[in-house]
Amino acid sequence: MALALDLLHTIDAGGRRAQLHLPHQTVETPVFMPVGTAGTVKAVPQDTLESLGAQIILGNTYHLYLRPGHEAIRRMGGLHKFISWPRAMLTDSGGFQVFSLSELRKVTDEGVKFRSHLDGSSHFFTPEHSMDVQIALGADIAMAFDECTEYPADRARAEESLRLTMAWARRSLDHFRAHQHEVPWAADFAGRSQSLFGIVQGGMYRDLRKQSAEQLMEMDFDGYAIGGLSVGEPRDLTLEMIAEVLPMLPKDKPRYVMGVGYPDEIEQYARMGVDMMDCVLPTRAARHGLLFTSEGRLTIKNKKFAEDQGPPDPNCDCMVCRRYTRAYLRHLMQAGEALSATLNTIHNLAYYLGIMQKVRASLEKPQQA
Amino acid sequence: MALALDLLHTIDAGGRRAQLHLPHQTVETPVFMPVGTAGTVKAVPQDTLESLGAQIILGNTYHLYLRPGHEAIRRMGGLHKFISWPRAMLTDSGGFQVFSLSELRKVTDEGVKFRSHLDGSSHFFTPEHSMDVQIALGADIAMAFDECTEYPADRARAEESLRLTMAWARRSLDHFRAHQHEVPWAADFAGRSQSLFGIVQGGMYRDLRKQSAEQLMEMDFDGYAIGGLSVGEPRDLTLEMIAEVLPMLPKDKPRYVMGVGYPDEIEQYARMGVDMMDCVLPTRAARHGLLFTSEGRLTIKNKKFAEDQGPPDPNCDCMVCRRYTRAYLRHLMQAGEALSATLNTIHNLAYYLGIMQKVRASLEKPQQA
Ligand SMILES: [Zn+2]
Ligand SMILES: [Zn+2]
Repeated sequence: MALALDLLHTIDAGGRRAQLHLPHQTVETPVFMPVGTAGTVKAVPQDTLESLGAQIILGNTYHLYLRPGHEAIRRMGGLHKFISWPRAMLTDSGGFQVFSLSELRKVTDEGVKFRSHLDGSSHFFTPEHSMDVQIALGADIAMAFDECTEYPADRARAEESLRLTMAWARRSLDHFRAHQHEVPWAADFAGRSQSLFGIVQGGMYRDLRKQSAEQLMEMDFDGYAIGGLSVGEPRDLTLEMIAEVLPMLPKDKPRYVMGVGYPDEIEQYARMGVDMMDCVLPTRAARHGLLFTSEGRLTIKNKKFAEDQGPPDPNCDCMVCRRYTRAYLRHLMQAGEALSATLNTIHNLAYYLGIMQKVRASLEKPQQA
Repeated sequence: MALALDLLHTIDAGGRRAQLHLPHQTVETPVFMPVGTAGTVKAVPQDTLESLGAQIILGNTYHLYLRPGHEAIRRMGGLHKFISWPRAMLTDSGGFQVFSLSELRKVTDEGVKFRSHLDGSSHFFTPEHSMDVQIALGADIAMAFDECTEYPADRARAEESLRLTMAWARRSLDHFRAHQHEVPWAADFAGRSQSLFGIVQGGMYRDLRKQSAEQLMEMDFDGYAIGGLSVGEPRDLTLEMIAEVLPMLPKDKPRYVMGVGYPDEIEQYARMGVDMMDCVLPTRAARHGLLFTSEGRLTIKNKKFAEDQGPPDPNCDCMVCRRYTRAYLRHLMQAGEALSATLNTIHNLAYYLGIMQKVRASLEKPQQA
């Protein structure tokens, strides 16, 4: 058995409170997934992530493939064991980073040839190879290999990109089904297996999005993601694409919107029926000194915080807000201290995870008439 | 009352098991003090330091004076409040960094003129100013302003340096006694005050060391430090200087050897009767991937650890050794991940603090005949 989704309650707007049963963790949804790029949510120890209530984190296939390498991770029992993370994990397909980070890319129907951004070495990723790598990493959820259509893209470009993504989705699924029993922890979780999600693309064209979703559903993935959003388009367009696709997707499978978003966005999309979201925003912004709080955004290195003895967010009871002042966080950033990234990230993650906790609670309640 | 030292047990070799009562913490000695340079033990959150059993940490007066500034820290209630550290603290005099980090130094009997290594701005430190800054910071223990004699130094240079240090010690003490009531937390700890330690210098000349100790004892400091060691001299010379000075110092006051050392050194000196030590070694080495373990030193980025699934130190039960593998720590360092410094530092501090815990336990036992 791959995953199982237990719907607990659904509201009229589409939002669902559910439990997503994965081999390593039963995840309470809707859920926000912190991004753990190269096997670490940057600057935050794993026990702190547990304390924060992170249920599932991401790993980036491209980064882990290049360093330390998926074969090494497979030999060490998979990514969970390698990084000592007992809860759920999801890996992306590697496609997004191949297209955004690597050099000298050459895309053919067969796959993508590229050079590593680390050492210039040559590599070739195909849907089959992405599956092999993701099976070796052994996250609870793997993603089909896709091409994330850039924004803006004209109709012809979006159609061609979608054609490629749909062909790769088919090949991803076939190869995954043939090899998923090879996951490193197969013996530890008898009868449980990885899940594979298909990714709806189609640029900003509603009919292409619809067509994409229909084709993927025919293939019968374990869950469905909406990709290619938050790539520079106006926010109402993001919303329009999500609103177009969500109602088409099967109710009994998880829905994942990739790479979004700001605090109010993740709340909005969760209420519409998105079960899973991830975003580098809370972690990356934290490292640049941008804190998300109940009172808005704080640029912590602002001089006005130099002697501000209030907590980063007076309405947050995270371990950072309970102990440290804005003045201290500003000092750490000004002084270039490593603790700055750690504390800022802990707060931002607490804020994001707290939003989803509140959304989950609100989705449990019977609706008011 | 400044500090009080309760001797619990003394062994023939001179080692003492004691309790050092300071305003913010009763410190079990002998104690190792992690270095918290600019108001943070680099890369380690304060709650983790507490879990590790750190009883007293250092702050660097030079760094904190330049950024964020001692007046700002005074207005925020002192260094303990600023960094949210409720246990004991000690500040150095600023002298060591003025001499090692700043530019364009000019030393006169009056004090030291220097330019900030941060922005080139001009500053003038005198013994009186060092005391003002340290009182504003409000550590439990402040240090007299001294000149750390470089190594090697010929006799004439060592004599002249010592003359300056002894004159500055007198001025430090007079100014400290006249102003110590101004410490920011005076009202919170009624009847308790900061303590001031004098620093024995004299280069590698036993008679100068002796003369230095005698002069300081006449001045009657709250405790005595031995400075100017571990500055490049051979280790038997370090030992010789410590062995020369220790027996002269009053038994009822704490003895602090500054800036030492390797794990076996801190154990050795503690058994000779040193009560307090600090060193950047465990924290700085950690950031460069050097781990101290019960099996010797590990250069964690060594390729041989790439798939080593053992803990950093099989005999350590710190939070890092209980959870992570050598392979993972190597990966974090190879990938330039922030978590690398954090986890390496936690283990090294656990190792150093663990050594002192064992030494304390052994000093409690009645001696074998
Ligand atoms: Zn917070
Ligand atoms: Zn350890």
